[in-house]
Amino acid sequence: MREAYQSDLRHIVDDLLDMAEMVGTALESATASLLEGDLALAERVVTADPHLDARQVELDAKAVELLARQSPVATDLRLLVATLRMSSSLERMGDLAAHVALIARRAHPEIAVPEQHRAQIARMCELGLSALQAASQVIENRDLALAAQVEKQDEELDDLMLEISREISSSSEQSYTNAQIIDLTLLIRFYERLGDHAVSLVRRVGFLVTGDSLDTLSEGVDVQEI
Amino acid sequence: MREAYQSDLRHIVDDLLDMAEMVGTALESATASLLEGDLALAERVVTADPHLDARQVELDAKAVELLARQSPVATDLRLLVATLRMSSSLERMGDLAAHVALIARRAHPEIAVPEQHRAQIARMCELGLSALQAASQVIENRDLALAAQVEKQDEELDDLMLEISREISSSSEQSYTNAQIIDLTLLIRFYERLGDHAVSLVRRVGFLVTGDSLDTLSEGVDVQEI
Repeated sequence: MREAYQSDLRHIVDDLLDMAEMVGTALESATASLLEGDLALAERVVTADPHLDARQVELDAKAVELLARQSPVATDLRLLVATLRMSSSLERMGDLAAHVALIARRAHPEIAVPEQHRAQIARMCELGLSALQAASQVIENRDLALAAQVEKQDEELDDLMLEISREISSSSEQSYTNAQIIDLTLLIRFYERLGDHAVSLVRRVGFLVTGDSLDTLSEGVDVQEI
Repeated sequence: MREAYQSDLRHIVDDLLDMAEMVGTALESATASLLEGDLALAERVVTADPHLDARQVELDAKAVELLARQSPVATDLRLLVATLRMSSSLERMGDLAAHVALIARRAHPEIAVPEQHRAQIARMCELGLSALQAASQVIENRDLALAAQVEKQDEELDDLMLEISREISSSSEQSYTNAQIIDLTLLIRFYERLGDHAVSLVRRVGFLVTGDSLDTLSEGVDVQEI
C-alpha cells in the first residue's frame, strides 16, 4: 500500500518531465516552422497540442486523487500542490509554442519574421529551450543549483524582447508592414512568457523543497516586463 | 474544531472574492489611466499590484495549511484545490491590469491608444469587468447559471481583438507609428487574456461543483486565438 503510494508519487514526477519534454519538442518545431516557413510542421505543432492538454487533465486527476486517498502531509503534500501549479504552467507553455506555430501558419507562404530579426528569434527559442531543460532537471533532482541559470535566461529573454521592440519603434514606418509588427510583437511576448513559466516551475520546486511560499512576490509585475 | 474549519473554508471564499474585487478596481483604473492619459492613476495601479500578490501568497498558504491539517475530502478538498488555481488566475489578472497601466505610463504625455480605437478599448474593459463580476458571483454562489455569459463575453473579447488587429493590418503604414502598433497589439492581448482567465475561474467552480476535470480541453489553443 505504502509502496504503491510512493510509486504513484514517482509517476507524478515522471508525468511532469514527460510534459516538459513535449513542450520542448513543440517549441523547437514551432520555431523551425516559423523561421523556415514550414507549413506542414506548423500544422503538426498545432495538432499535437491537445495531447499535452490531455496529459495535464490526467495528471491533475491523479494528483487530486492522491490528495483525497492518502491525505499526504509535509513534502508529499507539497509535491502534489506544486504539481497542480506546474502542470498548469507546462500546459500554458505548450499553448504558447502552438501560438508561435499559428503565426507561422497565418503568415504562410511569407515568413512572419523579417530577415533582420531571425537570429534574435532563434536565440529566444534557444534560451527558452535551455531554461525549460534546466527547469526539468530541477524538477527531476529537486536540486535548486540550476535555479539561478533559469532566472538569468529569463532575464536575457526579457532583454531580447525589449531590444527587438526598440528596434521596431525606432525604425521608419516603411521598414515593416503593420501585420509584421503585430506578429513580431506577439512572438517576442510568447517567448518571453515561456521564460517566465520556466522560472515559475523552478520556484515551485523551491516551495516543494523549502516550504516557502508557492508563488513569490517577485513573480509580480516587473516594470521592465511589458 | 469542526466549526472553526468550516469558518476557515468560508474565509477562503471571501479571500477569493476580495482578490476579484481588487482586480476589478485595478482594471477599471488602468483603463481610465490609459484612455485619459492619467499618469498618477497609472502609477497607483502599478503600486497597488504587490498588495494583490501578497493576498495570493497568504491565501495559498491558508489553503495548503488546511490541506495538511484537515485532510479534506470530496467538496472541501475540491474547494481547496480549485482555490489554488483560482488565486493564481486572479493574481495574473492583476498583473495584466498593471501591464495596461504600464503602457499608459510609457506613452505619457501621449495617449497610447489612437482616437479611432478608444471606444473599442473601453468596450474591452467593460467586457472584462463584466466577465470578472459574473465569475465572482459564480464563485460566491457556486451556481454555474452565469457560466454561459462569461464564455460569451470572452468570445466578444476575442472578436474585438481580431477586429482591431485586422483594422491595423489593413491600414496604410502611415496611419500608425510603429510604437502605437506595438502598444495596441499588447493591449488587446492583455484584455483578451483577462477574458480567458475569467472563463478559467468559472471552470474551476465547475470542477468544485461537479468534480469534472480541473481544466478542460477546450481551454487549449483556439485557432482563432492569436
